[in-house]
Amino acid sequence: MTDVTLDVSTAAAPPLPTVFQRYQESIDFALRDRLSDSTSSLYSMLRYAMGWSDASGSPVSAPQGKALRPTLCLLTCEAVCGEYKQALAPAVALELIHNFSLIHDDIQDRDEYRRHRPTVWKVWGEPKALTAGNVMRIVADTTMEGPRGDSVSVEDIVTVIKVLTEASLEMIEGQYLDVAFEGRSDIGMKSYLDMISRKTGALIRTPMHVGSIMGTDDQAIIQSFRECGRSLGYVFQIRDDVLGIWSEENTTGKPVGADIRRKKNSLPIVHAMSQADRAQKHALEHVYEKETVEDADVETVLDIMDSLGTEVFANSMAADHCERGLEWLQGVEIHADARAEIEELSTFLLIRRH
Amino acid sequence: MTDVTLDVSTAAAPPLPTVFQRYQESIDFALRDRLSDSTSSLYSMLRYAMGWSDASGSPVSAPQGKALRPTLCLLTCEAVCGEYKQALAPAVALELIHNFSLIHDDIQDRDEYRRHRPTVWKVWGEPKALTAGNVMRIVADTTMEGPRGDSVSVEDIVTVIKVLTEASLEMIEGQYLDVAFEGRSDIGMKSYLDMISRKTGALIRTPMHVGSIMGTDDQAIIQSFRECGRSLGYVFQIRDDVLGIWSEENTTGKPVGADIRRKKNSLPIVHAMSQADRAQKHALEHVYEKETVEDADVETVLDIMDSLGTEVFANSMAADHCERGLEWLQGVEIHADARAEIEELSTFLLIRRH
Repeated sequence: MTDVTLDVSTAAAPPLPTVFQRYQESIDFALRDRLSDSTSSLYSMLRYAMGWSDASGSPVSAPQGKALRPTLCLLTCEAVCGEYKQALAPAVALELIHNFSLIHDDIQDRDEYRRHRPTVWKVWGEPKALTAGNVMRIVADTTMEGPRGDSVSVEDIVTVIKVLTEASLEMIEGQYLDVAFEGRSDIGMKSYLDMISRKTGALIRTPMHVGSIMGTDDQAIIQSFRECGRSLGYVFQIRDDVLGIWSEENTTGKPVGADIRRKKNSLPIVHAMSQADRAQKHALEHVYEKETVEDADVETVLDIMDSLGTEVFANSMAADHCERGLEWLQGVEIHADARAEIEELSTFLLIRRH
Repeated sequence: MTDVTLDVSTAAAPPLPTVFQRYQESIDFALRDRLSDSTSSLYSMLRYAMGWSDASGSPVSAPQGKALRPTLCLLTCEAVCGEYKQALAPAVALELIHNFSLIHDDIQDRDEYRRHRPTVWKVWGEPKALTAGNVMRIVADTTMEGPRGDSVSVEDIVTVIKVLTEASLEMIEGQYLDVAFEGRSDIGMKSYLDMISRKTGALIRTPMHVGSIMGTDDQAIIQSFRECGRSLGYVFQIRDDVLGIWSEENTTGKPVGADIRRKKNSLPIVHAMSQADRAQKHALEHVYEKETVEDADVETVLDIMDSLGTEVFANSMAADHCERGLEWLQGVEIHADARAEIEELSTFLLIRRH
């Protein structure tokens, strides 16, 4: 299964698993359907945020997200019952919730670029961007209110709405912790893992959770997918943290050491602080106390991480979570092709470059 | 019934109808229950926003809102079925949605005070305030997920969630229009009424709508209350607009002419612009084009409104809507005491000073 000797370097991007393409058209169609209702300038902002149009509203093909969350949701549903269409509503809701969080995140972090384009607040100003995020969030809510297939009960709908709401709450609580941690150098591994399991994990676990609810009533299967998703949430965020330190600008749009420059409390820093000797700890704290982090400071931190084996540690932690996640599915009856695709996708999360 | 000769002056506050006290304890208990889950600093912000604690988290009795929306919801439910407890969940959801909108509104408008206290963003900064608003919104969503009484079906729950979601969306679309209108002097009466029916009307109409859903399955009754609520939404916002121009600082916390100073497109300005002669129109436009509105400009605008009978017009428009709203309930069977209370509350909305 997963193997720590996989190529986890940050140099060149592995190909996107084909499962992303398989659902792409369905997801894209359903997403556009939710955001095409209105010609008001409010919805233009949402379409811009999705990468479908430029700031003037003209259609473009800007770089879009991978639609990881809806893909996980549909793949799970198909794995348990052989069909995925009934999971399209929560899949779309999840992608919209994710995009809501990006719009508000960019306001909070004052990020001016996302996927190489100016962020919504940068184009329209903060008051309108704040509103755009809120609308994206509410459109997500409306997604579950459409007609449902025969195989889906009203109780399932209520359950899924509840799970989505809880996931949103966890995500926002996690974002809050992340903001509250920034600039601090005393965040331990436990606090860090708790934070990412909320901030990122909630929206990786939930697609597999609700995808399985839409496909089966078997509570043991639903739990297995939820727990698998929980593990993959760690994989995703730890990989994000690794890329935030060691990836090249041309793949993520951020420079090497980006998260050091912004004094982000990501896994590598938490690891380095916990393993550092007295002198190294002093040097790390010194960088984190500075108003502006210089190139030389980034070098200092990277050297310390090198000497402590931080990158290897992070990669192996992610690989462990990946393996543990897939173990949850071993006893579960899954369509054979789907199992291979879930394994491929999980491995991709471990080695992705953006 | 309503009478345009009622004392609609803005000088002294009429007493709060007793119905507000009747539900106060139930509403307060249910609201605190939703926001007491966590001891995290995130929830401290929410309790501060509700007026329950100071910035350090210590309990205080700061001025709180009237809880108009939950009161309307419970009163409606009791009016149609003699009980109100089953409507507590949506009542609380509505108050939380309202407070979410206040936290984000204050960020958007850069308002530093609300109910004579520093706003959430002013105390904690904008990134945390943005998160606090989002959490308030999601806690509202979770409110409908609690245990339901025997008289409430799962279909009712799904319907109420849907109505609440649509109301939130309308409210935010209305806020967006309001922001987009600011600084413009060409907003006609129709656009203005459309904007307020969304921005404010949605959260006045919806309490009566969902309150009736929780109390009856009779669609004609539900429609009557929804339409009554729609009219009361106009009453509420038009009164707000009148107070925004002519009320004294000591009752609302804002100075006379506050909405002129911020070049807000409220009903009085829309009316004055539509009735002004050429010279008056020129004078109004001149004020709205200025970077900063001075005391003398406020005087100029107030004089023009005086000469055009703007205040009388606005008051009579509100009174018309009040009358029309109550007419919707004439054919509906309602518990007698409740009918008197709805009339008292409606009249209060027409003459309130804050």
